[in-house]
Amino acid sequence: MPVGTQGTVKAVAQDVLESLGAEIILGNTYHLYLRPGHEAIRRMCGLHRFMSWPRALLTDSGGFQVFSLNALRKVSDDGVRFRSHLDGSSHFFTPEHSMEVQIALGADIAMAFDECTEYPAERGRAEESLRLTMAWARRSLDHFRAHRDEVVWGNDRNGEAFEGRTQSLFGIVQGGMFGDLRRQCAERLVEMDFDGYAIGGLSVGEPRELTLEMIAEVLPLLPKDKPRYVMGVGYPDEIEQYARMGVDMMDCVLPTRAARHGLLFTSEGRLNIKNKQYAEDQAPPDPACNCMVCRRYSRAYLRHLMQAGEALSGTLNTIHNLAYYLSIMKRVRASLQSQDG
Amino acid sequence: MPVGTQGTVKAVAQDVLESLGAEIILGNTYHLYLRPGHEAIRRMCGLHRFMSWPRALLTDSGGFQVFSLNALRKVSDDGVRFRSHLDGSSHFFTPEHSMEVQIALGADIAMAFDECTEYPAERGRAEESLRLTMAWARRSLDHFRAHRDEVVWGNDRNGEAFEGRTQSLFGIVQGGMFGDLRRQCAERLVEMDFDGYAIGGLSVGEPRELTLEMIAEVLPLLPKDKPRYVMGVGYPDEIEQYARMGVDMMDCVLPTRAARHGLLFTSEGRLNIKNKQYAEDQAPPDPACNCMVCRRYSRAYLRHLMQAGEALSGTLNTIHNLAYYLSIMKRVRASLQSQDG
Repeated sequence: MPVGTQGTVKAVAQDVLESLGAEIILGNTYHLYLRPGHEAIRRMCGLHRFMSWPRALLTDSGGFQVFSLNALRKVSDDGVRFRSHLDGSSHFFTPEHSMEVQIALGADIAMAFDECTEYPAERGRAEESLRLTMAWARRSLDHFRAHRDEVVWGNDRNGEAFEGRTQSLFGIVQGGMFGDLRRQCAERLVEMDFDGYAIGGLSVGEPRELTLEMIAEVLPLLPKDKPRYVMGVGYPDEIEQYARMGVDMMDCVLPTRAARHGLLFTSEGRLNIKNKQYAEDQAPPDPACNCMVCRRYSRAYLRHLMQAGEALSGTLNTIHNLAYYLSIMKRVRASLQSQDG
Repeated sequence: MPVGTQGTVKAVAQDVLESLGAEIILGNTYHLYLRPGHEAIRRMCGLHRFMSWPRALLTDSGGFQVFSLNALRKVSDDGVRFRSHLDGSSHFFTPEHSMEVQIALGADIAMAFDECTEYPAERGRAEESLRLTMAWARRSLDHFRAHRDEVVWGNDRNGEAFEGRTQSLFGIVQGGMFGDLRRQCAERLVEMDFDGYAIGGLSVGEPRELTLEMIAEVLPLLPKDKPRYVMGVGYPDEIEQYARMGVDMMDCVLPTRAARHGLLFTSEGRLNIKNKQYAEDQAPPDPACNCMVCRRYSRAYLRHLMQAGEALSGTLNTIHNLAYYLSIMKRVRASLQSQDG
């Protein structure tokens, strides 16, 4: 899932995302709550219509940004007090408030409000954090079930009537890097019966074997007939590996953020388009790629755009990286389907 | 003609420009000479192939940027010494060198090297400047005629063979705001027999009536069967007015630059999309416009992108402004054709 933090996948227009085959994108609750504001988006009939994205949307809970963008946050059992990274204003997020905001945004999938355990974390700290996450999961679910009918979405998405349908809510498995805590969390969340399950708190600085170990611990405990989502991963080979293990959904800013810094993912490995060696290289970024960028532009041109600080640089680099990521998932899906057959 | 200073119309991909109906765009010789360098572009078979733009291209002479970006330039009869705005390095441009660079870039239309007279300018200064421009026009044309066969363009533009075809060179009428100097310049240039004629040194700070007066002085002296081009104009109503007077070509950074600052040109007038009044305005930027932006996005969304500093803001605003400008010219062309008929 490409990440569209502020209601836009940075530098790429919605029609291009559609033609790339993106079926679902993310919005960040924290950012949209601060700007333009969830009530404004509700008044404009939700994020789908606001950003003109008729396909699926997922919003995170806001928790991760509260933790990663706020050094001075204050966590209590009730919720988290934090300061806006935009203007320093003070805000308080509770599980109930996260649900309210996400219902106002009206994405197809909302996420339970969790506390992302930092890495490294001692067992005591991970246990305490997990206690909060599980209490907040319960409160998120209760509030969501009581208010899910309040979602506003027009019946004009592709002319399809959404009347009567509601959003889905996913729970998030935390537990630091402790397998037993992770399993305990997964079991409790499954008892609560969410619409889907995410594994959070990974790819936060730990070695990759540990990421893999945690996913392997948790995945078998999550129901196969509901979506299983690993948050915040990863490199091209990682997402392929996890998908083959049974992960259904992943999101990451890596393909888009790296693109804006000139790092392209290709079938030949990573390519730093800023490098001087590409100054007159007329080959496409990835000769094996059939995306609209690789069909039309050379490495030399992409390097020039980057050197010249041109906006088109971010756009074209991002389009290629997203095309590359989406092509991996397409290939994996085809391969898994043929195995099923 | 949309302006593509550094080999890109800022923030808009080439396929979008094509779908907008842009038939010709500009490249800036000064910028491309400095980065990536005209010899590099020549080695990559010219600007058309470098930027993947199979439609028509025009390069300016470099003169205007040398004048506008270099406070410390030194002008002599031979040429202009200036410092790069990028790294302070010293460069010397002569009419011959401008031709060499433009032949290396390989646009369909090249421009004679001129001196753009500043505004306001006393008659003595305008006369001296005009003397240089006319001497340089002669030298530009002589060098161009002697070397025009050296242009490198692949025969792969749309599969069409360009073998044997050469670039066109336009002369530029200067003369400050003195009608008799303008007429004298036009007559001398027409005697030299350029492939087309431009009126330069306008829209440099003078009142609009004066711009109009200068165009009205010069236009009747320029052959009707060759393109007549007014450089660096203008606002939507201006370009319509000049086109109806007989001007065939115009270029301006206004639609693209204004777009990046949030100024949209619409059938209802200018709209500053940053204004708070648009925060929840779900109307399209221009209800009378059928461009891909107005068909899909609201003023509220465009305002949000701008407020949030998102790259997509510049892209969508620019697409609308270009669509609006191109639609004006389309309407004027249709109207003129029906008068002819």
